[in-house]
Amino acid sequence: MEAEHYVGGLLGRAAKAAVKLAAMDGFEKNAVLLKMADLLEKNSAAVVKANAADVEAAKKSMTPSELDRLVLDAGRVKSIAGDVRAVALLKDPVGEEEGWTVPNGLRIRRVRVPFGVIGAIYENRPNVTVDIASLCVKSGNACVLRGSASALNSNRALVAALKPALPDGAVELVDTADRAAVDVMMKARGRLDLLIPRGGAELIRHTVENSRVPVIETGTGNCHVFVDADAGLDMAERIVMNSKTQRPSVCNAEEKLLVHRSVAREFVPRIVKSLRAKGVEIRACPETMKLVPDAIPAKEDDWYREYLGLIIAIKIVGGVDEAIAHINKYNSKHTEAIVTGSYDNAARFTKQVDAAAVMVNASTRFTDGGQFGFGAEVGISTQKLHARGPMGLRELTCTKYIVEGNGQVRP
Amino acid sequence: MEAEHYVGGLLGRAAKAAVKLAAMDGFEKNAVLLKMADLLEKNSAAVVKANAADVEAAKKSMTPSELDRLVLDAGRVKSIAGDVRAVALLKDPVGEEEGWTVPNGLRIRRVRVPFGVIGAIYENRPNVTVDIASLCVKSGNACVLRGSASALNSNRALVAALKPALPDGAVELVDTADRAAVDVMMKARGRLDLLIPRGGAELIRHTVENSRVPVIETGTGNCHVFVDADAGLDMAERIVMNSKTQRPSVCNAEEKLLVHRSVAREFVPRIVKSLRAKGVEIRACPETMKLVPDAIPAKEDDWYREYLGLIIAIKIVGGVDEAIAHINKYNSKHTEAIVTGSYDNAARFTKQVDAAAVMVNASTRFTDGGQFGFGAEVGISTQKLHARGPMGLRELTCTKYIVEGNGQVRP
Repeated sequence: MEAEHYVGGLLGRAAKAAVKLAAMDGFEKNAVLLKMADLLEKNSAAVVKANAADVEAAKKSMTPSELDRLVLDAGRVKSIAGDVRAVALLKDPVGEEEGWTVPNGLRIRRVRVPFGVIGAIYENRPNVTVDIASLCVKSGNACVLRGSASALNSNRALVAALKPALPDGAVELVDTADRAAVDVMMKARGRLDLLIPRGGAELIRHTVENSRVPVIETGTGNCHVFVDADAGLDMAERIVMNSKTQRPSVCNAEEKLLVHRSVAREFVPRIVKSLRAKGVEIRACPETMKLVPDAIPAKEDDWYREYLGLIIAIKIVGGVDEAIAHINKYNSKHTEAIVTGSYDNAARFTKQVDAAAVMVNASTRFTDGGQFGFGAEVGISTQKLHARGPMGLRELTCTKYIVEGNGQVRP
Repeated sequence: MEAEHYVGGLLGRAAKAAVKLAAMDGFEKNAVLLKMADLLEKNSAAVVKANAADVEAAKKSMTPSELDRLVLDAGRVKSIAGDVRAVALLKDPVGEEEGWTVPNGLRIRRVRVPFGVIGAIYENRPNVTVDIASLCVKSGNACVLRGSASALNSNRALVAALKPALPDGAVELVDTADRAAVDVMMKARGRLDLLIPRGGAELIRHTVENSRVPVIETGTGNCHVFVDADAGLDMAERIVMNSKTQRPSVCNAEEKLLVHRSVAREFVPRIVKSLRAKGVEIRACPETMKLVPDAIPAKEDDWYREYLGLIIAIKIVGGVDEAIAHINKYNSKHTEAIVTGSYDNAARFTKQVDAAAVMVNASTRFTDGGQFGFGAEVGISTQKLHARGPMGLRELTCTKYIVEGNGQVRP
């Protein structure tokens, strides 16, 4: 009940702020963003100090890479402020419209408007707090933010720094480690217009399965690269190495390699050598095992898994159709790539593979709002409703019909 | 477990059909639709006979208007076949695309594609079965349909008539009255891409609250008309009468009337007289009660209610801001209308009212896919995610990014 009362209060304030934000024009919103950036820099020392307390408390329990994601120093705060200024420069999607007139003279316009109040549940990277706050301000939405308990001091300091720039209630931090607060958010249908979970697979699964508020599912990427019969093998090696090893911990990294049987004997030993030189563990289908006898036999479960690390599973397939069938059975509908010289196979692969993004002769790592030219990224949607693939500012808005007449009634 | 096995089988067949439907071009899909229409007419007698059994069984329990929605005769079957032919004439949204090239030479295209498998849960109008089946075929989706138990014979005959025109599994009827089948559908995350409930408020609430599959919420309409100070009162009367009485049982009918205090003394008695002449019961705020002493005092709950019948609640307000605040507190975000001569008030109302559709000087009854020029209507979405307002074929599709390169990797 206490969480309901507390979070309910935040949601109420956010609802009032949403009305104000929706009424602000682009110049006003940009002025707020630039002030947010200035305030972050001005309060950098306080933020870094609060963060140090979080880092100190987390030292015992977190891995070095988890800890690295949590840490803020003056340089990182400056960089976050720079990101906020970059958001100010983006095009404002609010107010975009298309219109037409129907035979009875009614003029119908579909106008892009903010959602209202957006909730976010995320893990220990405190930069996400500022990231979502700035994207929501730019798109005219109020937001209620629930970061992880381990970053609570950092988030508190960040939001405190931002508040003087913002309309009251525009960015509300759920300032409690009580998990009941998350349940209240997930049940706040009618008070939260959208809920975005950002983080690990378990966080996302839990939110998607329990939320009664509309959710956008982001993130899980069991991404494949299929090396076709007539792929240029130099290009194939470059793409596989980049997809797998350039940043193995992220959702658009490659997890699986499918190789056409006709090039397997040449390509598999070669790519395995390069991958192992980068520390990648090889798991293999029975046919691949014959070419790489010291690999680890892949289990059925491997084909479903997102390793998010230096592991890859390799399977030899008979052609593009088998590759497509395998991918559509096991993938998480994020990003899939084909390396091929065949026009027909590229067309078939892009048409039939069910994923947010399908790459031809390019690294899976390009599925990214920045790389796509959106300037900012809210996350990468792996669902089909509303948004699919990298989400930019436009995906934080919805539409409203405005119909203007001069007394029309239905006959 | 039996429902899981049975519905699971339907979902599996639908998934296979979805791949086939997605690969069909517009000519092929239109040929299927025209054949569906022919088969409906050819099997009209069997459909009408099966329907008669449903009607006979329902006679004891249904109201005359419920029974009317259930009945199919030869004329209605012919009309349904005509609707299928009309869907064939609509523009196919699948394959629409926009594209751009980013500085590294990658060509990015966002292409409109079918969802895959769409589920529908609906009530006793058997025409909905054909309606959804034809819209899904046109948009390249397979569908799994769960109508009400009371229309099971009719739906069975309709789907049996359509099947010879369709790829195997393209339209699957959940041919059981077992309610467990609905639960399986709501939990079929990953097997159903979208679930659409169509029917009464209780059906929709139950689906929205229990589904783990992405849902589009349709239908509930607590719609207001606000008569402003300088409204032409003849136009105001015409719009209120049309919004309330032209078809009071539908979601875009008016439920509430807000009247500016400065015209209340003139307008309220006049509109009450006209409404009562059409059999409309008047519920009133305390101030309205003074002008209409024999009205029923409105309770707090009245302001939230969707009557779907010949009842209206009237409230006198001090101006456009009070009207907006009242609407945003009580409305169901469907359709709201202002009757005004003021440019400023029209602008403020359309900007600040939170609803799928906002009308200026037009009847609320125009929120409709047909009236908007979409040709067909899947339902009227009252949520903000993915689709808002009348949904046409395009709202039954999503997008996929196709990225084409010549060996690009991320630096």
